[in-house]
Amino acid sequence: MRFARFVHAGGVSFGVVEGDASGLTIAEISSLPFEEVRFTGQRWALADVRLLAPIFSSKVIGVGRNYADHAAELGNEVPKEPLIFIKPSTSVIGPNDAIRLPPQSQRVEEEAELAVVIGATGARRVDRAGAEKAIFGYTIGNDVTARDLQRSDPQWTRAKGFDSFCPIGPWIVTGLDVSDLEIRCEVGRDPEAMEVRQIGRTKDMVFDIPTLVSYVSHVMTLLPGDIILTGTPAGVSEITSGDTVSVSIQGIGELRNPVVSLD
Amino acid sequence: MRFARFVHAGGVSFGVVEGDASGLTIAEISSLPFEEVRFTGQRWALADVRLLAPIFSSKVIGVGRNYADHAAELGNEVPKEPLIFIKPSTSVIGPNDAIRLPPQSQRVEEEAELAVVIGATGARRVDRAGAEKAIFGYTIGNDVTARDLQRSDPQWTRAKGFDSFCPIGPWIVTGLDVSDLEIRCEVGRDPEAMEVRQIGRTKDMVFDIPTLVSYVSHVMTLLPGDIILTGTPAGVSEITSGDTVSVSIQGIGELRNPVVSLD
Repeated sequence: MRFARFVHAGGVSFGVVEGDASGLTIAEISSLPFEEVRFTGQRWALADVRLLAPIFSSKVIGVGRNYADHAAELGNEVPKEPLIFIKPSTSVIGPNDAIRLPPQSQRVEEEAELAVVIGATGARRVDRAGAEKAIFGYTIGNDVTARDLQRSDPQWTRAKGFDSFCPIGPWIVTGLDVSDLEIRCEVGRDPEAMEVRQIGRTKDMVFDIPTLVSYVSHVMTLLPGDIILTGTPAGVSEITSGDTVSVSIQGIGELRNPVVSLD
Repeated sequence: MRFARFVHAGGVSFGVVEGDASGLTIAEISSLPFEEVRFTGQRWALADVRLLAPIFSSKVIGVGRNYADHAAELGNEVPKEPLIFIKPSTSVIGPNDAIRLPPQSQRVEEEAELAVVIGATGARRVDRAGAEKAIFGYTIGNDVTARDLQRSDPQWTRAKGFDSFCPIGPWIVTGLDVSDLEIRCEVGRDPEAMEVRQIGRTKDMVFDIPTLVSYVSHVMTLLPGDIILTGTPAGVSEITSGDTVSVSIQGIGELRNPVVSLD
């Protein structure tokens, strides 16, 4: 199933996205996505609502250098253990929300990533099998990074923590085999002529998803809705005001965000 | 005023702590601490309730190397800009809750710190004057750190992010001049013979509090209840199972936490 959060004339709801490219609709639910699904009977054409980030997250955990080709392009070794960092919840935006380039950075880059969404039970010190049970589903994330500040600051908190630096969406897909999916990122000003920046496959992660979830859960308890961004493949490059960033993952969909200057 | 959050026979409430060492009581309020205070009329002796971390925080921002003597004792330069990092909300515990030493670390240390609590309006890209207005009050924090992992990991997220690594409390004090307060940390197994580890004064911060709040707010929007830990003075050292850590700040009070091994 595909779970989204959306704004309609009557407020904000969670819903289930149904149909295919020929006509998508969203059926409102009164439950949280994690719970047994209860439909309200209300339904909209997807084009008539505005999608939000599909879930609230108490924390977003990023994983650095989890694809060997991306580690190499930035001149880094592949780490011996997962290299984790935190993006604040204030960095999260939804589909079509603007990535705002802050004046402190002269070079902001996209990082297309598969995002793991933790389910109802959370996860505390779980093994690989427990990790699989703790996962609710998957969505698309963009670990937007001020590359110059990442290089100059001792910690990545500023470079990866600006407001709007964590687009998430468009929805959460459950029951998906994510062991070998294509991740693609295109950037450009003309929707008909986007430049392909990143093409990778999830099978090339250095640390696989159960390993990542287990590792993080041995440090900090993962709560329902928490997100783990699983790292980006090679090809990251600068995004500038006027661009649109499109991240697509097989079996999930496409996350698009325009880029604007904050000042 | 002193605002606390506490467990009583009827549930969990916010309250105002009144009285002095000869007899402290807590008066329940039905408002949030940020709002106009509305008393319910219920009151307890402080000894009859259990204090919790005094506020919910969507994020806790730490500041590294903000006292020159502490930067020097770890062999570091004082940074040219505030060095910020994030502690997850799952690391927060309250007064008397146990700091749990994880098996991944062989050396965990305390870091006694003044904690800034953001008020009702939050703060986004505020200047120093705006920063002062955004501050609700102050409490005591302990930025517990796995020193070995801080040295070996590229990012500090794991070293500073374990569950229980952020004791906060015992309450939030408003209207306090924090420009020159003593911060003291004592550690020991015998309450009558604690070892004084850290003695510092807030006037020795490298970056003062309005500078820190303004700096962080130009990266990420600060929300009501968010906490900024303002750095630790010299004297940090190992804490082990069986110790109690006591952090005291003039005009606020004392935050005590026992230390236990997780495994």
